[in-house]
Amino acid sequence: MRPADELRDTVEAYLGSLRFARELGGLEQALRYSLESGGKRVRPVLCLAVAEACGGRVEDALPAAAALELVHTFSLVHDDLPALDDDAERRGRPSTHVAFGDGVALLAGDALLAEALRLALTYESDDVARDLAEATLGMIGGQYRDITGDDVDLDELHRLKTGRLFVAAIRLGLDVAGVPETERGAWLVFGEDVGLLFQVVDDLLDGDGYAERLGHEGTSRLADEVADRARARLDELTVDTSVLRQLVGALAVRTG
Amino acid sequence: MRPADELRDTVEAYLGSLRFARELGGLEQALRYSLESGGKRVRPVLCLAVAEACGGRVEDALPAAAALELVHTFSLVHDDLPALDDDAERRGRPSTHVAFGDGVALLAGDALLAEALRLALTYESDDVARDLAEATLGMIGGQYRDITGDDVDLDELHRLKTGRLFVAAIRLGLDVAGVPETERGAWLVFGEDVGLLFQVVDDLLDGDGYAERLGHEGTSRLADEVADRARARLDELTVDTSVLRQLVGALAVRTG
Repeated sequence: MRPADELRDTVEAYLGSLRFARELGGLEQALRYSLESGGKRVRPVLCLAVAEACGGRVEDALPAAAALELVHTFSLVHDDLPALDDDAERRGRPSTHVAFGDGVALLAGDALLAEALRLALTYESDDVARDLAEATLGMIGGQYRDITGDDVDLDELHRLKTGRLFVAAIRLGLDVAGVPETERGAWLVFGEDVGLLFQVVDDLLDGDGYAERLGHEGTSRLADEVADRARARLDELTVDTSVLRQLVGALAVRTG
Repeated sequence: MRPADELRDTVEAYLGSLRFARELGGLEQALRYSLESGGKRVRPVLCLAVAEACGGRVEDALPAAAALELVHTFSLVHDDLPALDDDAERRGRPSTHVAFGDGVALLAGDALLAEALRLALTYESDDVARDLAEATLGMIGGQYRDITGDDVDLDELHRLKTGRLFVAAIRLGLDVAGVPETERGAWLVFGEDVGLLFQVVDDLLDGDGYAERLGHEGTSRLADEVADRARARLDELTVDTSVLRQLVGALAVRTG
Protein backbone atom coordinates (compact mmCIF):
# COMPACT_ATOMS: atom_id res chain seq x y z
CA MET A 1 0.00 0.00 0.00
CA ARG A 2 1.39 3.37 -0.96
CA PRO A 3 1.00 5.97 1.79
CA ALA A 4 -1.29 8.94 1.23
CA ASP A 5 1.48 11.46 0.53
CA GLU A 6 2.96 9.22 -2.15
CA LEU A 7 -0.49 8.88 -3.74
CA ARG A 8 -0.83 12.63 -3.67
CA ASP A 9 2.49 13.09 -5.46
CA THR A 10 1.38 10.55 -8.05
CA VAL A 11 -1.86 12.48 -8.64
CA GLU A 12 0.03 15.74 -8.88
CA ALA A 13 2.45 14.37 -11.47
CA TYR A 14 -0.38 12.83 -13.48
CA LEU A 15 -2.40 16.07 -13.49
CA GLY A 16 0.67 17.93 -14.68
CA SER A 17 1.17 15.48 -17.53
CA LEU A 18 -2.47 15.55 -18.76
CA ARG A 19 -2.86 16.50 -22.39
CA PHE A 20 -5.91 18.59 -23.16
CA ALA A 21 -7.75 18.85 -26.47
CA ARG A 22 -5.52 20.68 -28.93
CA GLU A 23 -8.49 22.69 -30.18
CA LEU A 24 -8.76 24.52 -26.84
CA GLY A 25 -5.82 26.64 -28.02
CA GLY A 26 -4.80 29.36 -25.55
CA LEU A 27 -7.66 28.41 -23.19
CA GLU A 28 -5.46 25.56 -21.98
CA GLN A 29 -3.46 28.05 -19.89
CA ALA A 30 -6.55 28.88 -17.84
CA LEU A 31 -7.27 25.18 -17.28
CA ARG A 32 -3.72 24.57 -16.08
CA TYR A 33 -3.75 27.65 -13.85
CA SER A 34 -6.99 26.47 -12.25
CA LEU A 35 -5.66 22.96 -11.71
CA GLU A 36 -2.33 24.12 -10.25
CA SER A 37 -4.04 25.44 -7.19
CA GLY A 38 -1.97 23.64 -4.58
CA GLY A 39 -5.06 21.83 -3.28
CA LYS A 40 -4.83 18.71 -1.17
CA ARG A 41 -6.19 16.44 -3.93
CA VAL A 42 -8.35 14.69 -1.31
CA ARG A 43 -10.83 13.20 -3.80
CA PRO A 44 -8.35 11.68 -6.23
CA VAL A 45 -6.18 10.34 -3.41
CA LEU A 46 -9.26 8.69 -1.85
CA CYS A 47 -10.10 7.16 -5.21
CA LEU A 48 -6.59 5.72 -5.64
CA ALA A 49 -6.49 4.41 -2.07
CA VAL A 50 -9.85 2.66 -2.46
CA ALA A 51 -8.82 1.12 -5.79
CA GLU A 52 -5.56 -0.15 -4.31
CA ALA A 53 -7.24 -1.45 -1.13
CA CYS A 54 -9.60 -3.46 -3.34
CA GLY A 55 -6.83 -5.04 -5.39
CA GLY A 56 -6.79 -2.57 -8.29
CA ARG A 57 -3.66 -0.91 -9.65
CA VAL A 58 -3.02 2.73 -8.79
CA GLU A 59 -1.97 3.40 -12.39
CA ASP A 60 -5.30 2.11 -13.69
CA ALA A 61 -7.19 4.38 -11.32
CA LEU A 62 -5.29 7.56 -12.26
CA PRO A 63 -7.57 8.70 -15.13
CA ALA A 64 -10.63 8.29 -12.90
CA ALA A 65 -8.91 10.08 -10.02
CA ALA A 66 -7.83 12.94 -12.27
CA ALA A 67 -11.33 13.20 -13.76
CA LEU A 68 -12.69 13.72 -10.23
CA GLU A 69 -10.20 16.52 -9.62
CA LEU A 70 -11.14 18.14 -12.94
CA VAL A 71 -14.83 18.13 -11.98
CA HIS A 72 -13.97 19.54 -8.55
CA THR A 73 -11.83 22.25 -10.17
CA PHE A 74 -14.54 23.12 -12.71
CA SER A 75 -16.97 23.63 -9.84
CA LEU A 76 -14.52 25.92 -8.00
CA VAL A 77 -13.81 28.02 -11.11
CA HIS A 78 -17.53 28.56 -11.73
CA ASP A 79 -18.31 29.04 -8.01
CA ASP A 80 -15.73 31.83 -7.79
CA LEU A 81 -17.33 33.79 -10.67
CA PRO A 82 -19.22 37.00 -9.87
CA ALA A 83 -22.44 35.22 -10.94
CA LEU A 84 -22.04 32.90 -7.94
CA ASP A 85 -19.76 33.54 -4.93
CA ASP A 86 -17.67 36.32 -6.47
CA ASP A 87 -14.47 35.24 -4.76
CA ALA A 88 -11.38 37.09 -5.96
CA GLU A 89 -8.96 34.67 -4.30
CA ARG A 90 -8.57 30.93 -4.09
CA ARG A 91 -5.84 29.54 -1.84
CA GLY A 92 -3.96 32.82 -1.71
CA ARG A 93 -3.86 33.33 -5.49
CA PRO A 94 -6.13 35.37 -7.77
CA SER A 95 -9.05 33.13 -8.76
CA THR A 96 -9.26 32.12 -12.39
CA HIS A 97 -11.68 34.89 -13.41
CA VAL A 98 -9.50 37.54 -11.80
CA ALA A 99 -6.43 36.19 -13.57
CA PHE A 100 -8.05 35.59 -16.98
CA GLY A 101 -11.35 37.48 -17.06
CA ASP A 102 -14.91 36.26 -16.43
CA GLY A 103 -15.53 34.97 -19.95
CA VAL A 104 -12.36 32.90 -20.13
CA ALA A 105 -13.00 31.48 -16.63
CA LEU A 106 -16.52 30.49 -17.64
CA LEU A 107 -15.20 28.66 -20.71
CA ALA A 108 -12.32 27.14 -18.73
CA GLY A 109 -14.83 25.64 -16.27
CA ASP A 110 -16.90 24.26 -19.16
CA ALA A 111 -13.78 22.75 -20.72
CA LEU A 112 -12.65 21.18 -17.44
CA LEU A 113 -16.01 19.40 -17.17
CA ALA A 114 -15.86 18.16 -20.77
CA GLU A 115 -12.22 17.05 -20.33
CA ALA A 116 -13.15 15.21 -17.13
CA LEU A 117 -15.77 13.20 -18.99
CA ARG A 118 -13.42 12.56 -21.90
CA LEU A 119 -10.87 11.20 -19.43
CA ALA A 120 -13.51 9.06 -17.71
CA LEU A 121 -14.39 7.65 -21.12
CA THR A 122 -10.93 6.17 -21.60
CA TYR A 123 -12.05 3.10 -19.63
CA GLU A 124 -13.43 0.08 -21.40
CA SER A 125 -16.48 0.08 -19.15
CA ASP A 126 -18.88 3.03 -19.05
CA ASP A 127 -19.21 2.86 -15.27
CA VAL A 128 -16.61 5.51 -14.44
CA ALA A 129 -18.04 8.07 -16.88
CA ARG A 130 -21.64 7.38 -15.88
CA ASP A 131 -20.93 7.56 -12.14
CA LEU A 132 -18.98 10.78 -12.65
CA ALA A 133 -21.75 12.42 -14.73
CA GLU A 134 -24.36 11.50 -12.13
CA ALA A 135 -22.25 12.77 -9.24
CA THR A 136 -21.66 16.01 -11.14
CA LEU A 137 -25.40 16.52 -11.53
CA GLY A 138 -25.93 15.89 -7.81
CA MET A 139 -23.19 18.39 -6.98
CA ILE A 140 -24.78 21.01 -9.25
CA GLY A 141 -28.12 20.35 -7.53
CA GLY A 142 -26.36 21.11 -4.24
CA GLN A 143 -24.90 24.36 -5.60
CA TYR A 144 -28.38 25.34 -6.77
CA ARG A 145 -29.84 24.79 -3.28
CA ASP A 146 -26.95 26.76 -1.85
CA ILE A 147 -27.56 29.88 -3.94
CA THR A 148 -31.36 29.88 -3.96
CA GLY A 149 -31.86 28.82 -0.35
CA ASP A 150 -34.81 26.85 -1.75
CA ASP A 151 -36.05 23.98 0.47
CA VAL A 152 -32.74 24.09 2.20
CA ASP A 153 -31.97 21.33 4.56
CA LEU A 154 -28.28 21.85 5.46
CA ASP A 155 -27.58 18.11 5.62
CA GLU A 156 -29.18 17.53 2.21
CA LEU A 157 -27.33 20.51 0.74
CA HIS A 158 -23.95 19.20 1.89
CA ARG A 159 -24.81 15.62 0.94
CA LEU A 160 -25.16 16.93 -2.62
CA LYS A 161 -22.75 19.83 -2.93
CA THR A 162 -19.78 18.19 -1.18
CA GLY A 163 -20.85 14.63 -0.52
CA ARG A 164 -21.71 13.50 -4.05
CA LEU A 165 -18.14 13.97 -5.28
CA PHE A 166 -16.68 12.24 -2.21
CA VAL A 167 -18.96 9.26 -2.71
CA ALA A 168 -17.98 9.33 -6.39
CA ALA A 169 -14.31 9.17 -5.36
CA ILE A 170 -15.04 5.92 -3.55
CA ARG A 171 -17.32 4.64 -6.28
CA LEU A 172 -14.82 5.27 -9.07
CA GLY A 173 -12.13 3.47 -7.07
CA LEU A 174 -14.50 0.50 -6.77
CA ASP A 175 -15.34 0.72 -10.49
CA VAL A 176 -11.68 0.55 -11.45
CA ALA A 177 -11.00 -2.36 -9.07
CA GLY A 178 -14.08 -4.17 -10.40
CA VAL A 179 -15.82 -4.52 -7.03
CA PRO A 180 -19.35 -5.86 -7.61
CA GLU A 181 -22.40 -3.79 -6.63
CA THR A 182 -23.32 -6.27 -3.88
CA GLU A 183 -20.05 -5.67 -2.01
CA ARG A 184 -20.20 -1.88 -2.06
CA GLY A 185 -22.52 -1.12 0.86
CA ALA A 186 -20.02 -0.28 3.61
CA TRP A 187 -17.74 1.50 1.13
CA LEU A 188 -20.44 3.89 -0.03
CA VAL A 189 -21.56 4.71 3.51
CA PHE A 190 -17.88 5.36 4.26
CA GLY A 191 -17.90 7.80 1.30
CA GLU A 192 -20.88 9.65 2.77
CA ASP A 193 -19.11 9.90 6.13
CA VAL A 194 -15.86 11.17 4.65
CA GLY A 195 -17.76 13.81 2.66
CA LEU A 196 -19.57 14.94 5.78
CA LEU A 197 -16.33 14.96 7.79
CA PHE A 198 -14.70 17.16 5.15
CA GLN A 199 -17.65 19.57 5.23
CA VAL A 200 -17.94 19.74 9.03
CA VAL A 201 -14.22 20.52 9.39
CA ASP A 202 -14.55 23.07 6.58
CA ASP A 203 -17.35 24.82 8.43
CA LEU A 204 -15.33 24.69 11.64
CA LEU A 205 -12.42 26.43 9.89
CA ASP A 206 -14.67 29.00 8.16
CA GLY A 207 -17.05 29.53 11.10
CA ASP A 208 -20.15 29.02 8.94
CA GLY A 209 -22.63 26.23 8.13
CA TYR A 210 -22.53 23.66 10.92
CA ALA A 211 -20.41 26.02 13.07
CA GLU A 212 -23.21 28.61 12.92
CA ARG A 213 -25.80 26.01 13.74
CA LEU A 214 -24.00 24.04 16.45
CA GLY A 215 -21.30 26.43 17.71
CA HIS A 216 -17.58 25.66 17.72
CA GLU A 217 -17.75 23.06 20.50
CA GLY A 218 -20.71 21.24 19.04
CA THR A 219 -19.22 21.20 15.55
CA SER A 220 -15.91 19.95 16.86
CA ARG A 221 -17.76 17.14 18.66
CA LEU A 222 -19.68 16.34 15.46
CA ALA A 223 -16.39 16.10 13.52
CA ASP A 224 -15.04 13.61 16.07
CA GLU A 225 -18.23 11.56 15.89
CA VAL A 226 -18.22 11.46 12.10
CA ALA A 227 -14.52 10.52 12.01
CA ASP A 228 -15.20 7.68 14.46
CA ARG A 229 -18.11 6.53 12.33
CA ALA A 230 -15.93 6.56 9.21
CA ARG A 231 -13.29 4.47 11.02
CA ALA A 232 -15.98 2.04 12.15
CA ARG A 233 -17.03 1.59 8.52
CA LEU A 234 -13.46 0.75 7.62
CA ASP A 235 -13.44 -1.87 10.39
CA GLU A 236 -16.32 -3.61 8.64
CA LEU A 237 -14.19 -4.13 5.56
CA THR A 238 -12.01 -7.19 5.21
CA VAL A 239 -9.23 -5.51 3.21
CA ASP A 240 -6.22 -3.41 4.28
CA THR A 241 -7.66 0.05 4.84
CA SER A 242 -4.66 1.54 6.63
CA VAL A 243 -4.15 4.30 4.05
CA LEU A 244 -7.82 5.27 4.23
CA ARG A 245 -7.59 5.37 8.03
CA GLN A 246 -4.63 7.70 7.64
CA LEU A 247 -6.70 9.93 5.32
CA VAL A 248 -9.60 10.09 7.78
CA GLY A 249 -7.17 11.09 10.52
CA ALA A 250 -5.69 13.84 8.34
CA LEU A 251 -9.14 15.17 7.41
CA ALA A 252 -10.25 15.24 11.06
CA VAL A 253 -7.36 17.44 12.20
CA ARG A 254 -6.77 19.57 9.12
CA THR A 255 -6.25 23.27 9.65
CA GLY A 256 -6.68 24.59 6.12
CA MET B 1 -37.74 8.16 -44.88
CA ARG B 2 -39.49 10.55 -42.55
CA PRO B 3 -39.51 14.12 -43.86
CA ALA B 4 -37.58 16.78 -41.95
CA ASP B 5 -40.62 18.36 -40.29
CA GLU B 6 -41.73 15.02 -38.93
CA LEU B 7 -38.22 14.41 -37.56
CA ARG B 8 -38.33 17.82 -35.94
CA ASP B 9 -41.63 17.02 -34.22
CA THR B 10 -40.14 13.74 -33.01
CA VAL B 11 -37.15 15.59 -31.54
CA GLU B 12 -39.41 18.15 -29.92
CA ALA B 13 -41.57 15.48 -28.27
CA TYR B 14 -38.52 13.56 -27.10
CA LEU B 15 -36.90 16.68 -25.59
CA GLY B 16 -40.15 17.43 -23.79
CA SER B 17 -40.25 13.92 -22.34
CA LEU B 18 -36.63 13.88 -21.10
CA ARG B 19 -36.23 13.15 -17.43
CA PHE B 20 -33.45 15.05 -15.71
CA ALA B 21 -31.57 14.02 -12.57
CA ARG B 22 -33.94 14.28 -9.62
CA GLU B 23 -31.20 15.88 -7.52
CA LEU B 24 -31.25 19.02 -9.69
CA GLY B 25 -34.40 20.01 -7.79
CA GLY B 26 -35.81 23.40 -8.82
CA LEU B 27 -32.93 23.96 -11.27
CA GLU B 28 -34.79 21.70 -13.68
CA GLN B 29 -37.14 24.60 -14.50
CA ALA B 30 -34.23 26.63 -15.87
CA LEU B 31 -33.08 23.68 -18.00
CA ARG B 32 -36.57 23.24 -19.45
CA TYR B 33 -36.98 26.96 -20.07
CA SER B 34 -33.67 27.04 -21.94
CA LEU B 35 -34.58 23.99 -24.02
CA GLU B 36 -38.07 25.27 -24.90
CA SER B 37 -36.61 28.00 -27.01
CA GLY B 38 -38.53 27.31 -30.19
CA GLY B 39 -35.30 26.67 -32.07
CA LYS B 40 -35.21 24.80 -35.36
CA ARG B 41 -33.47 21.75 -33.87
CA VAL B 42 -31.21 21.62 -36.93
CA ARG B 43 -28.48 19.52 -35.30
CA PRO B 44 -30.70 16.76 -33.87
CA VAL B 45 -32.76 16.56 -37.06
CA LEU B 46 -29.54 16.17 -39.09
CA CYS B 47 -28.43 13.42 -36.74
CA LEU B 48 -31.72 11.52 -37.10
CA ALA B 49 -31.77 11.94 -40.87
CA VAL B 50 -28.21 10.62 -41.22
CA ALA B 51 -28.94 7.65 -38.95
CA GLU B 52 -32.07 6.78 -40.94
CA ALA B 53 -30.35 7.25 -44.32
CA CYS B 54 -27.69 4.77 -43.17
CA GLY B 55 -30.18 2.14 -42.12
CA GLY B 56 -30.44 3.00 -38.43
CA ARG B 57 -33.69 3.50 -36.56
CA VAL B 58 -34.79 7.04 -35.72
CA GLU B 59 -35.82 5.90 -32.22
CA ASP B 60 -32.32 4.58 -31.55
CA ALA B 61 -30.80 7.88 -32.60
CA LEU B 62 -33.03 10.04 -30.40
CA PRO B 63 -30.83 10.06 -27.26
CA ALA B 64 -27.79 11.07 -29.35
CA ALA B 65 -29.81 13.73 -31.17
CA ALA B 66 -31.16 15.13 -27.91
CA ALA B 67 -27.69 15.11 -26.36
CA LEU B 68 -26.51 17.32 -29.25
CA GLU B 69 -29.33 19.77 -28.61
CA LEU B 70 -28.50 19.84 -24.90
CA VAL B 71 -24.87 20.71 -25.67
CA HIS B 72 -25.99 23.39 -28.13
CA THR B 73 -28.40 24.81 -25.53
CA PHE B 74 -25.74 24.77 -22.80
CA SER B 75 -23.49 26.81 -25.08
CA LEU B 76 -26.24 29.37 -25.76
CA VAL B 77 -27.10 29.75 -22.07
CA HIS B 78 -23.47 30.39 -21.17
CA ASP B 79 -22.87 32.58 -24.25
CA ASP B 80 -25.77 34.85 -23.27
CA LEU B 81 -24.35 35.49 -19.78
CA PRO B 82 -22.89 38.93 -19.02
CA ALA B 83 -19.44 37.28 -18.76
CA LEU B 84 -19.64 36.51 -22.49
CA ASP B 85 -22.07 38.12 -24.96
CA ASP B 86 -24.43 39.64 -22.39
CA ASP B 87 -27.54 39.06 -24.49
CA ALA B 88 -30.79 39.78 -22.71
CA GLU B 89 -32.95 38.09 -25.34
CA ARG B 90 -32.88 34.82 -27.19
CA ARG B 91 -35.48 34.24 -29.89
CA GLY B 92 -37.76 36.99 -28.60
CA ARG B 93 -37.81 35.74 -25.02
CA PRO B 94 -35.73 36.82 -22.01
CA SER B 95 -32.55 34.74 -22.04
CA THR B 96 -32.10 32.26 -19.21
CA HIS B 97 -30.01 34.54 -17.02
CA VAL B 98 -32.53 37.36 -17.34
CA ALA B 99 -35.38 35.00 -16.45
CA PHE B 100 -33.60 33.14 -13.62
CA GLY B 101 -30.54 35.20 -12.61
CA ASP B 102 -26.88 34.81 -13.61
CA GLY B 103 -26.01 32.19 -11.01
CA VAL B 104 -28.90 29.88 -11.87
CA ALA B 105 -28.20 30.26 -15.60
CA LEU B 106 -24.54 29.37 -15.04
CA LEU B 107 -25.54 26.21 -13.15
CA ALA B 108 -28.27 25.39 -15.69
CA GLY B 109 -25.68 25.45 -18.47
CA ASP B 110 -23.36 23.20 -16.46
CA ALA B 111 -26.22 20.79 -15.81
CA LEU B 112 -27.24 20.72 -19.49
CA LEU B 113 -23.71 19.65 -20.42
CA ALA B 114 -23.60 16.95 -17.75
CA GLU B 115 -27.09 15.72 -18.75
CA ALA B 116 -26.03 15.61 -22.41
CA LEU B 117 -23.14 13.33 -21.57
CA ARG B 118 -25.31 11.17 -19.30
CA LEU B 119 -27.72 10.76 -22.20
CA ALA B 120 -24.90 9.96 -24.63
CA LEU B 121 -23.76 7.29 -22.17
CA THR B 122 -27.00 5.33 -22.50
CA TYR B 123 -25.56 3.63 -25.60
CA GLU B 124 -23.78 0.34 -25.33
CA SER B 125 -20.81 1.72 -27.25
CA ASP B 126 -18.79 4.67 -25.97
CA ASP B 127 -18.56 6.25 -29.40
CA VAL B 128 -21.48 8.64 -29.03
CA ALA B 129 -20.30 10.00 -25.69
CA ARG B 130 -16.67 10.28 -26.78
CA ASP B 131 -17.52 12.02 -30.06
CA LEU B 132 -19.82 14.41 -28.23
CA ALA B 133 -17.24 15.27 -25.55
CA GLU B 134 -14.60 15.93 -28.22
CA ALA B 135 -16.93 18.09 -30.30
CA THR B 136 -17.86 20.05 -27.17
CA LEU B 137 -14.19 20.78 -26.49
CA GLY B 138 -13.71 21.95 -30.08
CA MET B 139 -16.75 24.20 -29.78
CA ILE B 140 -15.43 25.70 -26.53
CA GLY B 141 -12.10 26.29 -28.28
CA GLY B 142 -14.04 28.23 -30.92
CA GLN B 143 -15.83 30.32 -28.30
CA TYR B 144 -12.46 31.09 -26.73
CA ARG B 145 -11.05 32.33 -30.04
CA ASP B 146 -14.21 34.37 -30.52
CA ILE B 147 -13.92 36.28 -27.25
CA THR B 148 -10.17 36.73 -27.13
CA GLY B 149 -9.67 37.50 -30.79
CA ASP B 150 -6.43 35.50 -30.34
CA ASP B 151 -4.92 34.08 -33.54
CA VAL B 152 -8.25 34.53 -35.17
CA ASP B 153 -8.75 33.03 -38.54
CA LEU B 154 -12.49 33.43 -39.23
CA ASP B 155 -12.73 30.09 -41.04
CA GLU B 156 -10.99 28.25 -38.22
CA LEU B 157 -13.13 30.04 -35.62
CA HIS B 158 -16.35 28.96 -37.32
CA ARG B 159 -15.06 25.48 -38.05
CA LEU B 160 -14.75 25.09 -34.29
CA LYS B 161 -17.50 27.22 -32.78
CA THR B 162 -20.29 26.18 -35.15
CA GLY B 163 -18.83 23.45 -37.30
CA ARG B 164 -17.71 21.00 -34.62
CA LEU B 165 -21.28 20.42 -33.42
CA PHE B 166 -22.61 20.08 -36.99
CA VAL B 167 -19.96 17.49 -37.80
CA ALA B 168 -20.84 15.79 -34.50
CA ALA B 169 -24.50 15.66 -35.60
CA ILE B 170 -23.42 13.67 -38.64
CA ARG B 171 -20.91 11.59 -36.71
CA LEU B 172 -23.39 10.61 -34.00
CA GLY B 173 -25.91 9.57 -36.66
CA LEU B 174 -23.20 7.35 -38.20
CA ASP B 175 -22.27 6.00 -34.74
CA VAL B 176 -25.87 4.98 -34.08
CA ALA B 177 -26.26 3.38 -37.53
CA GLY B 178 -22.95 1.56 -37.06
CA VAL B 179 -21.28 2.96 -40.17
CA PRO B 180 -17.59 1.94 -40.16
CA GLU B 181 -14.85 4.59 -40.02
CA THR B 182 -13.71 3.73 -43.56
CA GLU B 183 -17.10 4.69 -45.06
CA ARG B 184 -17.41 8.04 -43.33
CA GLY B 185 -15.28 10.30 -45.52
CA ALA B 186 -17.94 11.97 -47.67
CA TRP B 187 -20.34 12.16 -44.73
CA LEU B 188 -17.92 14.09 -42.55
CA VAL B 189 -17.02 16.53 -45.31
CA PHE B 190 -20.77 17.01 -45.80
CA GLY B 191 -20.96 17.84 -42.07
CA GLU B 192 -18.26 20.50 -42.47
CA ASP B 193 -20.15 22.01 -45.41
CA VAL B 194 -23.50 22.07 -43.60
CA GLY B 195 -21.88 23.75 -40.59
CA LEU B 196 -20.31 26.37 -42.84
CA LEU B 197 -23.58 26.88 -44.72
CA PHE B 198 -25.39 27.47 -41.43
CA GLN B 199 -22.76 29.99 -40.34
CA VAL B 200 -22.61 31.88 -43.64
CA VAL B 201 -26.40 32.28 -43.73
CA ASP B 202 -26.31 33.32 -40.07
CA ASP B 203 -23.80 36.04 -40.86
CA LEU B 204 -25.89 37.11 -43.85
CA LEU B 205 -28.94 37.51 -41.60
CA ASP B 206 -26.97 39.29 -38.84
CA GLY B 207 -24.77 41.36 -41.16
CA ASP B 208 -21.57 40.33 -39.37
CA GLY B 209 -18.73 37.81 -39.80
CA TYR B 210 -18.59 36.77 -43.46
CA ALA B 211 -21.05 39.55 -44.39
CA GLU B 212 -18.59 42.12 -43.02
CA ARG B 213 -15.72 40.51 -44.84
CA LEU B 214 -17.36 39.75 -48.20
CA GLY B 215 -20.35 42.10 -48.35
CA HIS B 216 -23.97 40.96 -48.78
CA GLU B 217 -23.56 39.90 -52.43
CA GLY B 218 -20.37 37.99 -51.87
CA THR B 219 -21.73 36.23 -48.79
CA SER B 220 -24.90 35.30 -50.61
CA ARG B 221 -22.79 33.83 -53.42
CA LEU B 222 -20.68 31.94 -50.88
CA ALA B 223 -23.84 30.48 -49.34
CA ASP B 224 -24.95 29.22 -52.75
CA GLU B 225 -21.55 27.71 -53.43
CA VAL B 226 -21.41 25.94 -50.09
CA ALA B 227 -24.97 24.62 -50.53
CA ASP B 228 -24.02 23.26 -53.96
CA ARG B 229 -20.93 21.65 -52.49
CA ALA B 230 -23.01 20.02 -49.75
CA ARG B 231 -25.42 18.66 -52.37
CA ALA B 232 -22.49 17.33 -54.39
CA ARG B 233 -21.29 15.44 -51.31
CA LEU B 234 -24.71 13.86 -50.98
CA ASP B 235 -24.49 12.77 -54.61
CA GLU B 236 -21.36 10.78 -53.75
CA LEU B 237 -23.33 8.68 -51.30
CA THR B 238 -25.10 5.57 -52.42
CA VAL B 239 -27.99 5.83 -49.95
CA ASP B 240 -31.26 7.79 -50.06
CA THR B 241 -30.27 11.30 -48.97
CA SER B 242 -33.50 13.05 -49.99
CA VAL B 243 -34.26 14.28 -46.47
CA LEU B 244 -30.74 15.67 -46.09
CA ARG B 245 -31.09 17.42 -49.45
CA GLN B 246 -34.31 18.94 -48.15
CA LEU B 247 -32.45 20.14 -45.02
CA VAL B 248 -29.66 21.73 -47.08
CA GLY B 249 -32.29 23.54 -49.14
CA ALA B 250 -34.02 24.85 -46.01
CA LEU B 251 -30.73 26.04 -44.48
CA ALA B 252 -29.76 27.84 -47.69
CA VAL B 253 -32.93 29.94 -47.81
CA ARG B 254 -33.70 30.38 -44.12
CA THR B 255 -34.68 33.84 -42.98
CA GLY B 256 -34.30 33.52 -39.22
